[in-house]
Amino acid sequence: MRSYRKEDFDTANVRQLLEPGPVVLVSSRWQDQTDIMTMGWHMVVEFTPALVACIIAPGNHSHELIRRSRECVINVPTFELIDTVVGIGNTSGSEVDKFAHFGLTAEAAAKVKAPLIGECYANFECRLHDDALADKYGMFVWEVVKAHVAVSPQTPETIHYRGDGQFMVAGRQVSRRGLFRPEMLP
Amino acid sequence: MRSYRKEDFDTANVRQLLEPGPVVLVSSRWQDQTDIMTMGWHMVVEFTPALVACIIAPGNHSHELIRRSRECVINVPTFELIDTVVGIGNTSGSEVDKFAHFGLTAEAAAKVKAPLIGECYANFECRLHDDALADKYGMFVWEVVKAHVAVSPQTPETIHYRGDGQFMVAGRQVSRRGLFRPEMLP
Repeated sequence: MRSYRKEDFDTANVRQLLEPGPVVLVSSRWQDQTDIMTMGWHMVVEFTPALVACIIAPGNHSHELIRRSRECVINVPTFELIDTVVGIGNTSGSEVDKFAHFGLTAEAAAKVKAPLIGECYANFECRLHDDALADKYGMFVWEVVKAHVAVSPQTPETIHYRGDGQFMVAGRQVSRRGLFRPEMLP
Repeated sequence: MRSYRKEDFDTANVRQLLEPGPVVLVSSRWQDQTDIMTMGWHMVVEFTPALVACIIAPGNHSHELIRRSRECVINVPTFELIDTVVGIGNTSGSEVDKFAHFGLTAEAAAKVKAPLIGECYANFECRLHDDALADKYGMFVWEVVKAHVAVSPQTPETIHYRGDGQFMVAGRQVSRRGLFRPEMLP
């Protein structure tokens, strides 16, 4: 499987990868247990600090690891990983070691203990920022404390879940930069 | 401008339109004031009741209308509306009537006072469910109380914002239904 060459990326810009709404893989570690889950319910909350919210229901094996460690990594896969993404979403970490079972590379993160997934286009190391709504909705607000993003291609072919086993694959890029007020752009 | 023919849609399935992560238009009304804002920071929270969270910062003219009315409509535009979506995001409702200025049709909703945008592919009527994190992050959790979705095409050409004036347009559809465990599908 392909492994992307990545560079450090400004955490204030993680919206470039997350706002389009891709399915992501969340990796976690607590003591000697590691897990990965497939997750599509996430949104950007703030640029600086770089906050991202997501829903991780208590039924997921990852939920317990994440609540205890208060950390995770949000990994952005591309189309070539679609069968792996579906496989991870259809197995439980209580039964299989997902890194071994799916042949994924666990790489050391810089600021958290949860591993990066080497085969993903981007990896965002996250520390828990706010769990006020964790009991009510399984909602966690994360601060992205370190971001790694592939050098190329410039726009990844992300996958977007529609439910019922159906995915939309990221299509063409269009710019409307010329229509923006200067103060609305970086 | 095109106007879609729409039908009632099961609110438990709004994830089919929102989970892929499109930019949406949020319409609101309070007393005699109406507004529309462009919004990309949203996520599904729960299937039933149909809960959706989003971020609407206090700086937006819509914020005040939404906080007072405790209602809104989330409208899903398609590619042909991209210039309108950008225009709406680059003007303030305190200066212009956005429906009139952008030539959009305000249609009556069934359960809220905020208007539907006729030219959008889908319209989700929302009532405020939880504003516990509204002061902290501008986060609102909505219950979709009524959903209207176009009869065709089956998969809309939604637009997805990457920041910096750049958009990704929804690409091809792929099914991986055969890889899902039966209990993971509806």
